[in-house]
Amino acid sequence: MMSLDKNIETLAIDTVRILSADAVQKANSGHPGTPMALAPMGHVLWKEFINFNPKNPDWANRDRFILSAGHACMLQYSFLHLLGYDISLDDIKNFRQMNSKTAGHPEYGLAPGIDVTTGPLGQGFANGVGFAIAQKHLAARYNKPNFPIFDYHIYAICSDGDMMEGVTSEAASLAGHLELGNLIYLYDDNHISIEGSTDIAFNEDVSKRFEAYGWHVQFVDDVNDIHALQLAIINAKAETQKPSLIRVRSLIAYGSPNKSGTAGSHGAPLGEEEMKLVKEFFGFDPNKNFNIPPEVAKYYKQIGEEKGKKEDDWNELFAEYKDKFPELAAEYEQAAAGKLPKGWLDKLPTFEPSDKKMATRQASGKVLNAIAECLPHLIGGAADLAPSTETNLKEFDSFTSENRDGRNFHFGIREHAMGSALNGMALTKGVIPFGATFLIFSEYMRPPIRLAAIMKIRPIFVYTHDSIGLGEDGTTHQPIEQLISLRSIPNITLIRPADANETAQAWRVALEHQGGPVILVFTRQGLPIMDQNKYSKATGLEQGAYILSEASKTPDLILIATGSEVSLILDAQAQLEKDGISTRVVSMPSWELFEKQDAAYKEKVFPKANKKRLAVEMASPLGWHKYVTDEGDILGMTTFGESAPAEDLYKHFGYTVDNVVKRAKALL
Amino acid sequence: MMSLDKNIETLAIDTVRILSADAVQKANSGHPGTPMALAPMGHVLWKEFINFNPKNPDWANRDRFILSAGHACMLQYSFLHLLGYDISLDDIKNFRQMNSKTAGHPEYGLAPGIDVTTGPLGQGFANGVGFAIAQKHLAARYNKPNFPIFDYHIYAICSDGDMMEGVTSEAASLAGHLELGNLIYLYDDNHISIEGSTDIAFNEDVSKRFEAYGWHVQFVDDVNDIHALQLAIINAKAETQKPSLIRVRSLIAYGSPNKSGTAGSHGAPLGEEEMKLVKEFFGFDPNKNFNIPPEVAKYYKQIGEEKGKKEDDWNELFAEYKDKFPELAAEYEQAAAGKLPKGWLDKLPTFEPSDKKMATRQASGKVLNAIAECLPHLIGGAADLAPSTETNLKEFDSFTSENRDGRNFHFGIREHAMGSALNGMALTKGVIPFGATFLIFSEYMRPPIRLAAIMKIRPIFVYTHDSIGLGEDGTTHQPIEQLISLRSIPNITLIRPADANETAQAWRVALEHQGGPVILVFTRQGLPIMDQNKYSKATGLEQGAYILSEASKTPDLILIATGSEVSLILDAQAQLEKDGISTRVVSMPSWELFEKQDAAYKEKVFPKANKKRLAVEMASPLGWHKYVTDEGDILGMTTFGESAPAEDLYKHFGYTVDNVVKRAKALL
Repeated sequence: MMSLDKNIETLAIDTVRILSADAVQKANSGHPGTPMALAPMGHVLWKEFINFNPKNPDWANRDRFILSAGHACMLQYSFLHLLGYDISLDDIKNFRQMNSKTAGHPEYGLAPGIDVTTGPLGQGFANGVGFAIAQKHLAARYNKPNFPIFDYHIYAICSDGDMMEGVTSEAASLAGHLELGNLIYLYDDNHISIEGSTDIAFNEDVSKRFEAYGWHVQFVDDVNDIHALQLAIINAKAETQKPSLIRVRSLIAYGSPNKSGTAGSHGAPLGEEEMKLVKEFFGFDPNKNFNIPPEVAKYYKQIGEEKGKKEDDWNELFAEYKDKFPELAAEYEQAAAGKLPKGWLDKLPTFEPSDKKMATRQASGKVLNAIAECLPHLIGGAADLAPSTETNLKEFDSFTSENRDGRNFHFGIREHAMGSALNGMALTKGVIPFGATFLIFSEYMRPPIRLAAIMKIRPIFVYTHDSIGLGEDGTTHQPIEQLISLRSIPNITLIRPADANETAQAWRVALEHQGGPVILVFTRQGLPIMDQNKYSKATGLEQGAYILSEASKTPDLILIATGSEVSLILDAQAQLEKDGISTRVVSMPSWELFEKQDAAYKEKVFPKANKKRLAVEMASPLGWHKYVTDEGDILGMTTFGESAPAEDLYKHFGYTVDNVVKRAKALL
Repeated sequence: MMSLDKNIETLAIDTVRILSADAVQKANSGHPGTPMALAPMGHVLWKEFINFNPKNPDWANRDRFILSAGHACMLQYSFLHLLGYDISLDDIKNFRQMNSKTAGHPEYGLAPGIDVTTGPLGQGFANGVGFAIAQKHLAARYNKPNFPIFDYHIYAICSDGDMMEGVTSEAASLAGHLELGNLIYLYDDNHISIEGSTDIAFNEDVSKRFEAYGWHVQFVDDVNDIHALQLAIINAKAETQKPSLIRVRSLIAYGSPNKSGTAGSHGAPLGEEEMKLVKEFFGFDPNKNFNIPPEVAKYYKQIGEEKGKKEDDWNELFAEYKDKFPELAAEYEQAAAGKLPKGWLDKLPTFEPSDKKMATRQASGKVLNAIAECLPHLIGGAADLAPSTETNLKEFDSFTSENRDGRNFHFGIREHAMGSALNGMALTKGVIPFGATFLIFSEYMRPPIRLAAIMKIRPIFVYTHDSIGLGEDGTTHQPIEQLISLRSIPNITLIRPADANETAQAWRVALEHQGGPVILVFTRQGLPIMDQNKYSKATGLEQGAYILSEASKTPDLILIATGSEVSLILDAQAQLEKDGISTRVVSMPSWELFEKQDAAYKEKVFPKANKKRLAVEMASPLGWHKYVTDEGDILGMTTFGESAPAEDLYKHFGYTVDNVVKRAKALL
């Protein structure tokens, strides 16, 4: 560690406070109070603890830093700028402006050094649990005696809001259970929220609650006491079994004579006059903005350079590791590069039409288990529904506090934390995470799905029991609006395969996909396996929609369906053709994949000249008009479902061959 | 209390265990294990504690019962049947069948005696907090010395799953903060979840955690010890300040020789053979199904009748109350009947075009405060965003542990619990609850919105900061897919008003609405106030879409928008008309209200003959094709937003007069 120099440290910390507040003031928008308060915390973290290389923000063994209180992002931007990341003073001055790196909340991929996009409260907290899981897993797989390739920690700064959000509770309980001692979280207990003192809504004993989850809890009663902070973090690192929470009291907008300790300093600039008073308080020139004393610039730059050397040491270690464990090193490097092992495609099973009916969740289970050995980086689990979602990797162990090499995860009945943890895992190069629950419970995990889409990362969300076809569990469990709700999220790819072979293709596309989350939607109920000799091959799935069964002559109409309704429209086609109506059947497992096709392909599948189209999906009809045109129709669910055996529900809601034929004929 | 007779009690309890398992077996679907285990708990609750009248399940002062572990619904159906509710033995035999009252999870409005629809875990727990808030509030408003009109308790049975869900944590923290001593929750700590022992995912100290929230926590180590259960509930009732959690150990599928204590008995019938063994275990005839010993039938029927007399006593009390406090009684009766006080409409403000720009959130705040005094039953709050959502009722106090008469709620940064609590409040006759946050955080509260829609109850969800128009907070905070996601939920009514006067009308429709939740969507940014003399009156909002500004002659095209984009298309209309293009402007604040209009009205607004239509909305274009037709276009958001000032974002994403005019002309 560097020698301590009281004066320079204080000056450095105060510079960060003022620089952050200046940026908010110039943007005339943002959150000055927390950066001003937490500058000492950031200082201690980046100076004393966090390992990083500003010149290579993606260094695999860097410590992860999560600003779960994302609104306080100026704190992080100020440090990243000063420590030598590629964030200029102009970037700081352009805080919250168009095309700037310094967005209103920290965005992964936009500014270097941002390990995860935060802002929606609780998410960062729970993402960190995924980071911690991934670190433990990589360490178990790759570390060797004298080769601690992966020994990084996960640091986070959390706010009162984070502590109140349910996803935090779920994630904290999971982290305690899994004994993720690599988590070191600092909780900014500033007693202020937007409506005023936190006392108006929040007076639980947070420390006791975290102890109940199995966390190691400490308290620092003044964030400005940097030695106390240091000591607490040293203790937290020494505690390797329990995750650590350090509750730290702070005064929001510290240094602002009129606004410190008030809700008013949380989410609005302090004002030009108050900014002058702040600068005076810290002994800075009240008339200078973005004033970084040269000795502070030099001081932090030097810290950044020294920290960067840690990667040099690691690179040496890894080179030696590569010599000694070439296969493991190659495996990791391939996985980290996002490449799949050669030969994995050969493991993808195909299913014969002579096989008996098979639910796509079952087919998915068979696919997963067929490819699992060849894809060691594929890890995942369910929110206490593995037997129902069929997502267990049968030949592999569970990931537990005692077995970090396990590949099956028991997330508990915590869908939201599962989603957020998957994001942390997906952000860690070297693993491909998936998580499963019933489609209806995607509703519990909307925020992490959206954040995965914003970050363009690729967790795989597996959702089974995808329609009224689940039967007796009834209204509360039957998805209706979930497909359109998920399809409406930018950057997602939702695939609802029609049978076992489309399911295998769906997994292929999901595993090869880059640039956003993939959502796989499977049935509870058994479905016929379509004859790939009679109909088009299931590989057509990758185009999103494809002519599964061509009409006997120029089509009079086009039937379109996804998932379990495809076999229904195939049966309807047979009837319609018998009745002399030339009918094309289009399987459309993925709107998003179809939209990526060129105009010629789209015209081939849905010719403009043929607007007699019927879409059949056991879900909300919203959004289908685009594909069926003004002259088409949609057989969708316009109400919630009912509790009854699936066959009765199909009759009740009109998902029968007779009704499809009737609706189709009505178009002509 | 009735005298205790060991033998009949045991027989009665065992009858419920077997009856419940029989129903699951006949349905060949469902969850037998928990009803079998918890029959003693149900027995103690309904016999000794819960006040109810089977002949009037809606009695206002009944104790509320919530089966948060909704999958265990056969437990409740069995008791309701035996106690004399209108649930026949045939209904029990038709468990989970089409058109049966006895759905796969308990459904409010379907079976009598179901106070709230449950199934999605954690919801019931959090609904109860809303019930408890409403009870405290009604008691504060209406109870008088010697007239405890509202003194009921809220009982719930919760499962491990409930304890793991984040919404429970949020709700528990809120309940502890608000000192809701009227909550008495029993937690079935059975150590079993679907993937196996709860130990694989859940080993936190639940009791300690609830103590940290400020709850009174007790432990009963065997659910079959009904005296211990009684004592614990007596203690819980005696503790009037803290909410109570009674952790009760149970053995799932108690009485099943081969399946008790296993995950296998959670969600599948035990099987015919095992059912015989169960019956033998309890000394029942193994060959008889749905066997209710006559003495048990008589025993529970009598309990039901005696309980019913409690309502007679209350009715006498209320009659006397009515004499002494006629105004209060009339106020309550009117509110409970869902009627609004006369004259309230006169309080609705109108806004003049000469007023300066006003955000619809601001207008909403003005409306709320204008009508609050006249509508004493309108209560609500925000998830720590009242100053931003402008939902504070300025002349009224906050609801706190010390002031139950307060009408402003501080839900904390707990959107999910807020939503679920609102549902519990909305289920309580005599209050109209609203809850507010940013539109983006509707994502945190999807499950309660959906359940409100399923139950057809009317909480009012207020969502502000409704588009990229919120500006600098950026990508994570800018709604894109939220409008279509919410519109896709059956039974909801979403209204996005275009200016201050439409906002007043939106509140009018919301308050007069019945049969489902209303979602009000407001801007952060200021909007011009449209001249109601020049354009159509804002009362047109109630039809969902209306011709706001007619074309100069037969329209060449139709511009359609919602919310903040309406003033943009008005400006575009002026330009287009200047360019000789006859343009109609349709304000379309609510798709759902429009869909309720007759065909003639729809044809008037959107004539089939005119398909040159451009919809403009700063949101996902999905779903708009239906209204713009094959020949129309949609100016929507196909990507996430950006962090920048709003004006810059409008330019970047094309929400300018020039671009609207360009896109419109391209249609011709």
